[in-house]
Amino acid sequence: MGDAEFNEALTNIRMSPIVSISEEVRKRAPLFTEQTGKKFVLFQRGEIDYPTPSYIIEAAKRALDAGYTKYPKSGGEDVLKDAIIAKLAHFNKVGGLARENVVCTYGGQEALELSFKLFAGRKGAGFAPCWSCVLENFVPFADIDFIEVPLEADFSVDFGKLDQILKNVSFFYLNSPHNPTGKLFSEEEVRTIVDLCSRHGVYLISDEAYERIVYDGKSHFSPMSLPYDNMIGTFTFSKTYAMTGWRLGYLVTRNTRVAELIKLGDYTQTAGVVTFLQYAGKAALEHKEEEERVVSGMVAEFQRRRDALYDGLRSIEGVSAEKPEGAFYLFPNFTSLIPAHLSGRERQMYVYERLMEKGVATVYGSCFGRHFGDNVRFSFSTTPPETIREGVERIREVFSTTPSRVGALP
Amino acid sequence: MGDAEFNEALTNIRMSPIVSISEEVRKRAPLFTEQTGKKFVLFQRGEIDYPTPSYIIEAAKRALDAGYTKYPKSGGEDVLKDAIIAKLAHFNKVGGLARENVVCTYGGQEALELSFKLFAGRKGAGFAPCWSCVLENFVPFADIDFIEVPLEADFSVDFGKLDQILKNVSFFYLNSPHNPTGKLFSEEEVRTIVDLCSRHGVYLISDEAYERIVYDGKSHFSPMSLPYDNMIGTFTFSKTYAMTGWRLGYLVTRNTRVAELIKLGDYTQTAGVVTFLQYAGKAALEHKEEEERVVSGMVAEFQRRRDALYDGLRSIEGVSAEKPEGAFYLFPNFTSLIPAHLSGRERQMYVYERLMEKGVATVYGSCFGRHFGDNVRFSFSTTPPETIREGVERIREVFSTTPSRVGALP
Repeated sequence: MGDAEFNEALTNIRMSPIVSISEEVRKRAPLFTEQTGKKFVLFQRGEIDYPTPSYIIEAAKRALDAGYTKYPKSGGEDVLKDAIIAKLAHFNKVGGLARENVVCTYGGQEALELSFKLFAGRKGAGFAPCWSCVLENFVPFADIDFIEVPLEADFSVDFGKLDQILKNVSFFYLNSPHNPTGKLFSEEEVRTIVDLCSRHGVYLISDEAYERIVYDGKSHFSPMSLPYDNMIGTFTFSKTYAMTGWRLGYLVTRNTRVAELIKLGDYTQTAGVVTFLQYAGKAALEHKEEEERVVSGMVAEFQRRRDALYDGLRSIEGVSAEKPEGAFYLFPNFTSLIPAHLSGRERQMYVYERLMEKGVATVYGSCFGRHFGDNVRFSFSTTPPETIREGVERIREVFSTTPSRVGALP
Repeated sequence: MGDAEFNEALTNIRMSPIVSISEEVRKRAPLFTEQTGKKFVLFQRGEIDYPTPSYIIEAAKRALDAGYTKYPKSGGEDVLKDAIIAKLAHFNKVGGLARENVVCTYGGQEALELSFKLFAGRKGAGFAPCWSCVLENFVPFADIDFIEVPLEADFSVDFGKLDQILKNVSFFYLNSPHNPTGKLFSEEEVRTIVDLCSRHGVYLISDEAYERIVYDGKSHFSPMSLPYDNMIGTFTFSKTYAMTGWRLGYLVTRNTRVAELIKLGDYTQTAGVVTFLQYAGKAALEHKEEEERVVSGMVAEFQRRRDALYDGLRSIEGVSAEKPEGAFYLFPNFTSLIPAHLSGRERQMYVYERLMEKGVATVYGSCFGRHFGDNVRFSFSTTPPETIREGVERIREVFSTTPSRVGALP
């Protein structure tokens, strides 16, 4: 029996290459350490090396003791929805929401998966580079015809190109702060994107997973604050509160029919979000002082790491990089260090492979779509500055011994 | 804008009528109490009135304290999988399983939803009456052409009919112990069903949610113990351990390609099951002594309730009922008490409505498919024996004042 008997939406899903990369690192790391006495530098992971703040852990325990162990209310408990509505009003400047506009989900992941499913069999678009999970999981699972709209080399937007593409799609996927570039879309960019979606009758799926992780005193501008009803905002507790394993997130939309359909989808998939964890989510959002202390401490440390990584990479001749203003990724370009005659898979893997040989794990650019194959993603969410500096020195070594700017072979 | 712009798989889902019934009860109950001084008797819910055993609560807290708050491993943590494999070998007599045969899911619900999704767009079948969530949620969400194979009036199986239908479907859904009848399929019945599936090359989706809730010293026979690879067993912690709000379950299959696809589906939908709750699941399965004490106490109480309800209903003239051997439902037939001239919606709602007027909430038979519209489901999972006796007396009253066996109008 072959795969022909099964649903293509499932057989077309691919496991993220990032998972295979981590598995490869697990295999290669002991050998590398044996040969060199050094540790692998792990720039490939999207995990966070902070523990979940104890005030949230304690809230979960209290909810367990209070017996919140019965079936959840479909779409989310009122107490969590109310806390989410207050947070959106206060932090995202998104006002006028009611409980019927909110659906609690298993992380931002389920919120996004269901948003894509809403448009199953239809056309959608999003900027390239694009988070790999969108391309490998949500798009095939919902059988979406997905158009990648490439950002410019400096990650700016070509609005003319965007305008043309929005004429022919049902939805646009926007992720800001952006994985894998670390780009924080400016208020002006966001306003223009929402305006174009509105003019073309296109739904906007707004992925705001990294909303709280922004640098240099800047702040995230949520498209949801604009007066266009056909937007779906997806949010998660994972990144802000180091709660990746809690699988807690939510979806917000002013289109109540959309909210109703997503609620039915969530109910069908899981019967709702773990009841007592919703009370922990409420606590996470409502303890403003503890939150401020925890989150700003984490973000300050991430900013130190970003600086170390950005300055380090920029000091290597031939590497060009944009300074991330949000998230915890850096996506430098290595074109001038890749032998010009290389193409296809060999070219895609070149930088990644050379760095792996030196004990530096990254994610190759082709994981993020059809464009930017000469870039490589660095995550600095688990690497303290000294580790980053060690990693940078190894990269410098790799390319100082490489004949760069090699011409094409005859 | 209308629903035409959205995925039909979502717009075709209906919320279970059981939810609407509970909402109606919430509205009618205060009025009823005001008028009669009595409380509503709640036979409509599938919830359990036991708390989650404290040894499981404590295990969840320990896992939180131990910092198991990072991303889960795709498909499930090894420690939980190993506990599941041991439980299946010991309790279900299902041997020879490895970790690659197991996928941890959000309750039995996600295990079933993904199993149905595996056959999206294809034909499937299952016995009628059938759990409403299958009909209202899994079937439309996966766009299944679902054939209901009616059980006989005494809930026995017509194997000739089944044999004919299995010639034309991709999968068969079997739920034992059975919701809504309380039927425990015998070992012989299960063997014959598996044999027919095997002969016709049909996948078996086995829903064993109520595996531990069986009466009269009987035991559940798992189809998964038979040597046919194309079976998918779905299990949950919800009913056995009163963990409905924890959303913890698992799926087992010897077909490793199926397990791989379900794992990808689960990852895409949710990124995996809450990490620290998997450690609580492990504890639930491994503390044999505490489990035995808790589960057997609960089942003994359910058996007292079943006896009170069964004896009570049987004592009402015109009600015919089969004695449940498992689960916590009773599905009596009221044909001879329904005026013969009634048809359609009016007939479907007749018994339900008459009982609601007397403060007795049940679920009308048409929620469970095209057959058995003259039956009504009683759940005894939250009703102590004295409440049951009060409910039975009200039902007796309803029908003692009803001209029964009314002939059809001219």
